[in-house]
Amino acid sequence: MTVEAQIEDLVAANRILSDQGVVDGFGHVSARHEEEATHFLLARSMAPGLVTADDILKFGLDGNALDPRGCTLYVERFIHSEIYKAHPEVKAIVHSHSPSIIPFCVTSVPLRPIYHMSSFLGAGVPIFEIRDAGGPATDMLIRSPELGAALARILGKSAVALMRGHGNVVVGTSVQQVVFRAIYTEVNAKLQAEALRLGQDKVNFLNSEEAANATATNNAVLNRPWELWKRQALASG
Amino acid sequence: MTVEAQIEDLVAANRILSDQGVVDGFGHVSARHEEEATHFLLARSMAPGLVTADDILKFGLDGNALDPRGCTLYVERFIHSEIYKAHPEVKAIVHSHSPSIIPFCVTSVPLRPIYHMSSFLGAGVPIFEIRDAGGPATDMLIRSPELGAALARILGKSAVALMRGHGNVVVGTSVQQVVFRAIYTEVNAKLQAEALRLGQDKVNFLNSEEAANATATNNAVLNRPWELWKRQALASG
Amino acid sequence: MTVEAQIEDLVAANRILSDQGVVDGFGHVSARHEEEATHFLLARSMAPGLVTADDILKFGLDGNALDPRGCTLYVERFIHSEIYKAHPEVKAIVHSHSPSIIPFCVTSVPLRPIYHMSSFLGAGVPIFEIRDAGGPATDMLIRSPELGAALARILGKSAVALMRGHGNVVVGTSVQQVVFRAIYTEVNAKLQAEALRLGQDKVNFLNSEEAANATATNNAVLNRPWELWKRQALASG
Amino acid sequence: MTVEAQIEDLVAANRILSDQGVVDGFGHVSARHEEEATHFLLARSMAPGLVTADDILKFGLDGNALDPRGCTLYVERFIHSEIYKAHPEVKAIVHSHSPSIIPFCVTSVPLRPIYHMSSFLGAGVPIFEIRDAGGPATDMLIRSPELGAALARILGKSAVALMRGHGNVVVGTSVQQVVFRAIYTEVNAKLQAEALRLGQDKVNFLNSEEAANATATNNAVLNRPWELWKRQALASG
Repeated sequence: MTVEAQIEDLVAANRILSDQGVVDGFGHVSARHEEEATHFLLARSMAPGLVTADDILKFGLDGNALDPRGCTLYVERFIHSEIYKAHPEVKAIVHSHSPSIIPFCVTSVPLRPIYHMSSFLGAGVPIFEIRDAGGPATDMLIRSPELGAALARILGKSAVALMRGHGNVVVGTSVQQVVFRAIYTEVNAKLQAEALRLGQDKVNFLNSEEAANATATNNAVLNRPWELWKRQALASG
Repeated sequence: MTVEAQIEDLVAANRILSDQGVVDGFGHVSARHEEEATHFLLARSMAPGLVTADDILKFGLDGNALDPRGCTLYVERFIHSEIYKAHPEVKAIVHSHSPSIIPFCVTSVPLRPIYHMSSFLGAGVPIFEIRDAGGPATDMLIRSPELGAALARILGKSAVALMRGHGNVVVGTSVQQVVFRAIYTEVNAKLQAEALRLGQDKVNFLNSEEAANATATNNAVLNRPWELWKRQALASG
Repeated sequence: MTVEAQIEDLVAANRILSDQGVVDGFGHVSARHEEEATHFLLARSMAPGLVTADDILKFGLDGNALDPRGCTLYVERFIHSEIYKAHPEVKAIVHSHSPSIIPFCVTSVPLRPIYHMSSFLGAGVPIFEIRDAGGPATDMLIRSPELGAALARILGKSAVALMRGHGNVVVGTSVQQVVFRAIYTEVNAKLQAEALRLGQDKVNFLNSEEAANATATNNAVLNRPWELWKRQALASG
Repeated sequence: MTVEAQIEDLVAANRILSDQGVVDGFGHVSARHEEEATHFLLARSMAPGLVTADDILKFGLDGNALDPRGCTLYVERFIHSEIYKAHPEVKAIVHSHSPSIIPFCVTSVPLRPIYHMSSFLGAGVPIFEIRDAGGPATDMLIRSPELGAALARILGKSAVALMRGHGNVVVGTSVQQVVFRAIYTEVNAKLQAEALRLGQDKVNFLNSEEAANATATNNAVLNRPWELWKRQALASG
């Protein structure tokens, strides 16, 4: 894949996540640079739904933009830099305030895979409590490499980590996969909350083998929803 | 009806189910071939919302496409082939991950007809547990004729069967009827969950005679919502 | 108002109710004839979202169309004819399966005014049980003058009556008012269900004087939302 | 900022609040006059989603329009005049019937900040009971300077006050800020209700320092969602 194609995918990812309601005016998505594993691509500070190719900047793993061109940067770019640093297998990252996951961020109910589309949750979904790493009086944001590194540790090998009073971070091995995961994390949260109410807390989740097997299967068909989401997102905005 | 007209209806069904939120990037709808009862029509593997007439392929009851034209096929085409084989009266089938039915797939709360539009649920809605037919470590998919046959047996004479941790299958005697049923199964699930909460589990469902009579009445007016849904779906995409 | 203007309003009402989600492929809205109080205007049998001026027919209070022009008629036109017959002050009627009211139709929780926009509910919202008038094996529809008359009796002087396992009927003194009431009945049902859950059944509703006074106030501003809804409905379809 | 630019922002605010579902046919947004602190700008009586620059009128702190040009005025303009009179730091005000806040208006469950986007709720959200100021038989509206002054007193230094059986009022130091706050008050209410159910009333809210710090941070990025909301609102209508 050329870097141009990678940027095109990243622009589509921004627009898709906005169109699908995972992000609103806030949230961001990045991709590890195709040719240089110590760099990543991320938009300047702006609403994801308005991002175009010209808005994508190249960052180092220190969280600095190589050529910021006078742009304001996302305060929380250290979410991306520190996860790429700690987890070499990660190639793409979404940070959002995905609405249905917020209730799971502020309660002790674990997010678990209710159906095969969200089977990647089977690896566990830890909660990052910023008070542990940043004390009781932060502004809730991952505004330093230290906070980013703490979040990357809590994430571990999971696909998703929730952030108390804030949102979540989702990782994947491609832009298509991370968008798929961010969208189905939102869907799972909404449906799991419904199921817990309906079943009075007795819900039959995927077991760990089902989750692992379904994840392998889903990874082979990521392009199917991507084409639909892309068409819808580019048409609507 | 000509096969051309049947394909046109099947394309509309794909677009309607997507526009109404019954399917997303996944899910599929088929029709038994108008002229050859041992064959059926189904799209190649793609998001239903993007299907056009050129994407429709002809399948045998072994689940193979007669002329696949190099296309990828839905892994779960055996849902269709085995139900058509086991149930000669079935002329159209929808498989989806219809969101509001997922909570009913993973709890023991039976889906029942809350109003006359979903009266077809009065025939009972069994749940297919893939662990019974495929063991504890499947990828959740109906990826073989054997699993398809097991699902067809659980379905029996019902209009709808739920699939644990996965979605549902809806059958009918025409494309218009199966689309109507798939949409109102989604609506019923959403409203039944609301009613159970509101009434603290005391809900007055249709009785069996009301359900049977309302179904006969609804079958005479399937074209009314179909025309609206078709207009909306074709306008929006 | 000329009959032409009245028909134009009735067409707008059909489109608004569809655009606002009060009706889907089913449901209907009528107006008592401007010049002949023993007649009313109602569309031929079709989805409200597709109605144009050419689809409006004139009916007598026996439920027959004066000149049906070969059109199929709504089976439930007797809802309209019998309410106009029993309640001379009623000038417009909506029948729908408005989704959020369905749970209130099948439980014993009374619908009450949660805020001033739905203050017209303060007159009480009776439930029509078709088993009382039609026995235990109807198809749920108001398919005769007798069933329509029974419904009109249950409605009494209320603005809204719920129909068990079916939907509701809303009446008003103008097309603008009945559309306003149908929309805010849906909103109230949704918000009341939320409030009952949030407050664990302790909710502070409008008292009867507040409800009566707010209704008088609202009646003076019906045109404000009507202009918005009309613009939105005609733009979207 | 010129008054022309201020009017342009106020028009955008009207359209954004409508597009985001904070207001429907009812509700209004005002701005203290840029050049004359004893005056404010507010539309004539109409649905916010239809407001253009020509519809904006200039009002004094007595609630009268300087040149009404024959237009009907909002009955509740005293919400604006009395809050501007009592609270000199307030520069913009939204009054709405924002749907998700209605359940919090009629129960005793306090609205609290569930995540950093709604951190401004950390200053407390009082409930205005019109029966205290206007007796048990009002029409629920703030139709006099006296009722407006009572509401302004209950509001105090909070960003938001709920109005029992009616809606809410949100204040800010700019049009961008008050729109941000009105939208995230709606989101918070929806998500807090979900979280309370999920966590069986055990929810970990922002503490007061987190809320204050996040509010300072958010105030620096108000333009980011504003640009998105404006683009979406102007495109959709």
